[in-house]
Amino acid sequence: MMRSFISVKTGFSAAHRLFNPEWSFERNQEVYGICNNPHGHGHNYTLEVTVEGAIPPETGMIMDMKELKELIEDAIISKVDHKHLNHDVDFLEGVIPTAENLATVFWGILESRIGEGKLYEIRVYESSKNIAFVRR
Amino acid sequence: MMRSFISVKTGFSAAHRLFNPEWSFERNQEVYGICNNPHGHGHNYTLEVTVEGAIPPETGMIMDMKELKELIEDAIISKVDHKHLNHDVDFLEGVIPTAENLATVFWGILESRIGEGKLYEIRVYESSKNIAFVRR
Amino acid sequence: MMRSFISVKTGFSAAHRLFNPEWSFERNQEVYGICNNPHGHGHNYTLEVTVEGAIPPETGMIMDMKELKELIEDAIISKVDHKHLNHDVDFLEGVIPTAENLATVFWGILESRIGEGKLYEIRVYESSKNIAFVRR
Amino acid sequence: MMRSFISVKTGFSAAHRLFNPEWSFERNQEVYGICNNPHGHGHNYTLEVTVEGAIPPETGMIMDMKELKELIEDAIISKVDHKHLNHDVDFLEGVIPTAENLATVFWGILESRIGEGKLYEIRVYESSKNIAFVRR
Amino acid sequence: MMRSFISVKTGFSAAHRLFNPEWSFERNQEVYGICNNPHGHGHNYTLEVTVEGAIPPETGMIMDMKELKELIEDAIISKVDHKHLNHDVDFLEGVIPTAENLATVFWGILESRIGEGKLYEIRVYESSKNIAFVRR
Amino acid sequence: MMRSFISVKTGFSAAHRLFNPEWSFERNQEVYGICNNPHGHGHNYTLEVTVEGAIPPETGMIMDMKELKELIEDAIISKVDHKHLNHDVDFLEGVIPTAENLATVFWGILESRIGEGKLYEIRVYESSKNIAFVRR
Repeated sequence: MMRSFISVKTGFSAAHRLFNPEWSFERNQEVYGICNNPHGHGHNYTLEVTVEGAIPPETGMIMDMKELKELIEDAIISKVDHKHLNHDVDFLEGVIPTAENLATVFWGILESRIGEGKLYEIRVYESSKNIAFVRR
Repeated sequence: MMRSFISVKTGFSAAHRLFNPEWSFERNQEVYGICNNPHGHGHNYTLEVTVEGAIPPETGMIMDMKELKELIEDAIISKVDHKHLNHDVDFLEGVIPTAENLATVFWGILESRIGEGKLYEIRVYESSKNIAFVRR
Repeated sequence: MMRSFISVKTGFSAAHRLFNPEWSFERNQEVYGICNNPHGHGHNYTLEVTVEGAIPPETGMIMDMKELKELIEDAIISKVDHKHLNHDVDFLEGVIPTAENLATVFWGILESRIGEGKLYEIRVYESSKNIAFVRR
Repeated sequence: MMRSFISVKTGFSAAHRLFNPEWSFERNQEVYGICNNPHGHGHNYTLEVTVEGAIPPETGMIMDMKELKELIEDAIISKVDHKHLNHDVDFLEGVIPTAENLATVFWGILESRIGEGKLYEIRVYESSKNIAFVRR
Repeated sequence: MMRSFISVKTGFSAAHRLFNPEWSFERNQEVYGICNNPHGHGHNYTLEVTVEGAIPPETGMIMDMKELKELIEDAIISKVDHKHLNHDVDFLEGVIPTAENLATVFWGILESRIGEGKLYEIRVYESSKNIAFVRR
Repeated sequence: MMRSFISVKTGFSAAHRLFNPEWSFERNQEVYGICNNPHGHGHNYTLEVTVEGAIPPETGMIMDMKELKELIEDAIISKVDHKHLNHDVDFLEGVIPTAENLATVFWGILESRIGEGKLYEIRVYESSKNIAFVRR
């Protein structure tokens, strides 16, 4: 019995600063280095969402990729694109915006929108070389 | 005990139309939207095939990547490249050519050529942003 | 005195067939080979438009890239995306849809929208490996 | 007589805000839209520098690409990477950090380091789809 | 309970020859074809290392990506970049440098540096189209 | 009057060593650094060839891209792919195989095959970040 999946990739451009407000500047510098720059820096993030499901014979689609993309854009991209992740995003308040934490928060948001048990994996690319992902 | 794999990527350029002939035009439009354009549209597809196996010490190769690529080109690419997937391909007759269905059909074809239990995953990229895959 | 430019890239997925209706099927086959497949094949096209201009000190922008992108999407992408270029596009009637001809036709359309003397180059990528472009 | 060139690409991750301090917030919003977000947003920028020159027969190199890359990293990348371009960079003080302006400022810096008459083009990619460049 | 991962990609440029010294030239030619060219050929390799772990709330990082990258560069890249893999690398002596074998050897080296039970996957891309990987 | 062009990209994997045989090892080391490694290193090269010409109305093609690609593969790729550029290629004897020199030599070969006055530019990518090109 084969498993089947679809993935869609979208992107957003955002600023962030890695910084734990409970620590001194020195401790933050030690842990996050240049990522602790007070005014922040930024990335073109790529967000890849993978859904697992059966392929219904009448449509041939696990889920409509266009619909999935629109859902991601509505739930996430429209909230984080061209924003500063430490200051401008409700669902990231109190979250240190590492790629790992972004993937985790996005999972929670998307699961409640797509339905439980469907999400398989969420990848957050800070660049083509630095990637974090969470997986069921 | 580690698992080991090889993947090869090849590509093909094809036209397709998402359309269920058992439905009215309106129902197709509702489900497939712009993908139901009667004359079709098209993509540069990428096909990624992953094989799992042990690494024999005398060759260091799970399977010769060049051979695997030639086998994929012979069994699939030569049949779908520069074709209209709804009209020109024997093994797609009666198949709605979604990326999910393509991946499933290609799996059947390749398994019979590579041998059972070796295929691990088949990915079909309709674009760099829309991907379907099946996995053992 | 330096020259300055901006480029924006957008994309569309379309089917096409290379075919000169004034020739026999055999002559078309001879000239276009597999690109003459009667039902067509398709590509994920990339369209890159470059505009030359001075950089006004008060905005720092030759032209707003977002506006340029919207203009291209309105004038071209919305007409060719998810279409068959031989059948579905008014401004391509009677045009053999080679990449060279697409670039030429797009130039005419965009020049009348952007204003004369601003366009510098239009590139049409049929794939990452096959590109045509026209340049002032 | 042929012309010969080398190009090297490097990258940096930075935050920026498009904003003209001489204008009201409303005027900035009108001109820059979402790019005027007060805390800024960010990009993985790519910087492509092209040098023109003769190819000396004894080395076969217009200029050592590794040296050129180090020079760019020293003069520019080390100053802008993981920074906020509106707040943290001496040579961008008073500059609206559009891609066009970045390319222009970088030209001035690099020309004084590489020597006059050698630079041919500087490209600044805000993303793979939005590019500004200046050229001799 | 979700699993979480980070991946970092680095690269190196190296020459190699596929060749089993215990075989005749003819047998090598039969098995490796053009990859058996006596002086070797070469690739821009990409190395992708994936680490699995919990996300500590105080840092938000499974492991510092920059540290992971430096560790990979110190342990592997600095030894193989701009080298001939059959002649210049201590830890590849006696190893037929296929992508599969490279991934396996790199796993051993990195596991001892990162700590047991943390590595999840190592991918070696000989090109964007030919990939080998080992996985826990 | 607009100018029109086509470009095709192909690739090859080769080893090379930057080394001037008329110099001492020390002088070579000084000039070429790690590129002077005696056994060589290697790259996945990309070769991009651009041809300028009029677009004949009856074909819509400056030149058949497939034919151009086959010509490049016959004249160049088949001679350099999976080779060591310092040892295995007739037309590179006595040439220091820098990207600049490769582009120059390829120009001579292709011009005699394509016809004078048609080539516009030849680009040699040693990697996605290091590029040399010659242009009419």
